[in-house]
Amino acid sequence: MPRQISSFSNETVKRIRGLRDKKQRKSEGLFLAEGLRILAEGRDSGCLPEIIAYSSAGGIHPLAEEIIVAAEAQGADVIETTPDILSKMSGKDNPQAILGAYRQPESGLAGIDRMRSPLWLVAQSLRDPGNIGTILRTGDATGAGGLILLDDCADAYSVEAVRASMGAIFTQSIAAARWEEFLPWLRSGVGQLVGMSLQTEHDYLEPIYEQPCFLLIGNESQGLPEPYEAECDLLVKIPMLGRADSLNAAVAAAVMAFQVRASWRNR
Amino acid sequence: MPRQISSFSNETVKRIRGLRDKKQRKSEGLFLAEGLRILAEGRDSGCLPEIIAYSSAGGIHPLAEEIIVAAEAQGADVIETTPDILSKMSGKDNPQAILGAYRQPESGLAGIDRMRSPLWLVAQSLRDPGNIGTILRTGDATGAGGLILLDDCADAYSVEAVRASMGAIFTQSIAAARWEEFLPWLRSGVGQLVGMSLQTEHDYLEPIYEQPCFLLIGNESQGLPEPYEAECDLLVKIPMLGRADSLNAAVAAAVMAFQVRASWRNR
Repeated sequence: MPRQISSFSNETVKRIRGLRDKKQRKSEGLFLAEGLRILAEGRDSGCLPEIIAYSSAGGIHPLAEEIIVAAEAQGADVIETTPDILSKMSGKDNPQAILGAYRQPESGLAGIDRMRSPLWLVAQSLRDPGNIGTILRTGDATGAGGLILLDDCADAYSVEAVRASMGAIFTQSIAAARWEEFLPWLRSGVGQLVGMSLQTEHDYLEPIYEQPCFLLIGNESQGLPEPYEAECDLLVKIPMLGRADSLNAAVAAAVMAFQVRASWRNR
Repeated sequence: MPRQISSFSNETVKRIRGLRDKKQRKSEGLFLAEGLRILAEGRDSGCLPEIIAYSSAGGIHPLAEEIIVAAEAQGADVIETTPDILSKMSGKDNPQAILGAYRQPESGLAGIDRMRSPLWLVAQSLRDPGNIGTILRTGDATGAGGLILLDDCADAYSVEAVRASMGAIFTQSIAAARWEEFLPWLRSGVGQLVGMSLQTEHDYLEPIYEQPCFLLIGNESQGLPEPYEAECDLLVKIPMLGRADSLNAAVAAAVMAFQVRASWRNR
């Protein structure tokens, strides 16, 4: 049976609200996902929330009902509350009618089974959580295995990243590592490390990429550090026809990821 | 000579701050761009601000100095002020040290010379200003002529869109129109209207696209309305390999725009 919560100062309300903060997410090991569409993606990927909060003010969608019942059966803390309190939890004026707090999976490189997919995305010091979520969504669309976050990236489990992922947070493996750990791990098995760079004449349309392909995406304003480029097995350039010499990081990742897949079409 | 402004209630301060509001932008015919990088793109594209405000608190960059001198020579209102007042103007805690208010160009379809470029991007009811700015940036990178905004799109001159465009707001032609105006305009000349759709078996990698190609991008959550798809000369599908059936709108636009260019490589 759902607990009814109508007090803003309730401990669970505060706890969920706290998940907007990275430190809190880390110490709790949880993250927040909002809205029926993303919760449904989670359920379809076998992920149910440990805490679920909803308002029945506008009626309950049958799909929401299913997710609530399934989460409860797995021992979730189920909370029925008001739109105002959901608004407090989510920090938004117009909150979604349902939200869930999910367990963060382990996120070491040991959890990455590279043979599971021919394509992996690797981001280095990417600062915008919206870009990280969008890259996860692109990873899902291109059949990537997951996203490896190198060095000082924004948190893939932040509310903004989860939202931009449109549910791919549940389908993509996620690992975080320093470059110094990543490189020996990468070289301990097969895999082609491909970087995007302005310092090369190799056009991105020319190669047939190897499998598994690890696509390295640099920081939004700096691109890849030179020593990282030097370790790549292949550097490619996306030609720029206008004034600018760069693309949005999530756009560059997508153009490359789709081209890597396209190169495998006629093999 | 720059005017010194140190009062938060100064009329120009209020006027610039007002440019964060769409109605105000429309009635003034101006828009706001922030930061040296974007202002430099503007200058390099032949655009100088009508009002320019800066703080010399951290020293003035030589490039900023050049832009200030050039704007002043063209009769701009040049304002030297404090970081606090720049913060008030821009609505941000950590404002850029320089910002400019620029004249919005005319934005009717009559201003679009379709023969100037083989590629044009067309967005329909796109709601996220960040997506619009990112699409402008992609348009610049792919040598598109500009972006046509159909129906109820977010404002390309909003602060978020200008920021995400990374200066492409100055290099891309921008027009706004209803579908009912756009279609007869399109059919009054040459051009292939290409839509992305799930209702087709045509893979996006197969065609050699015609020139000029008008690439039609649908709303973030609804995609293209069916009657719009019916008017397209070609519908193509980007295959999805994961659970999701859609991409971020700016990502989809970029994957298509780069593929259109790629299809012209070996002609």
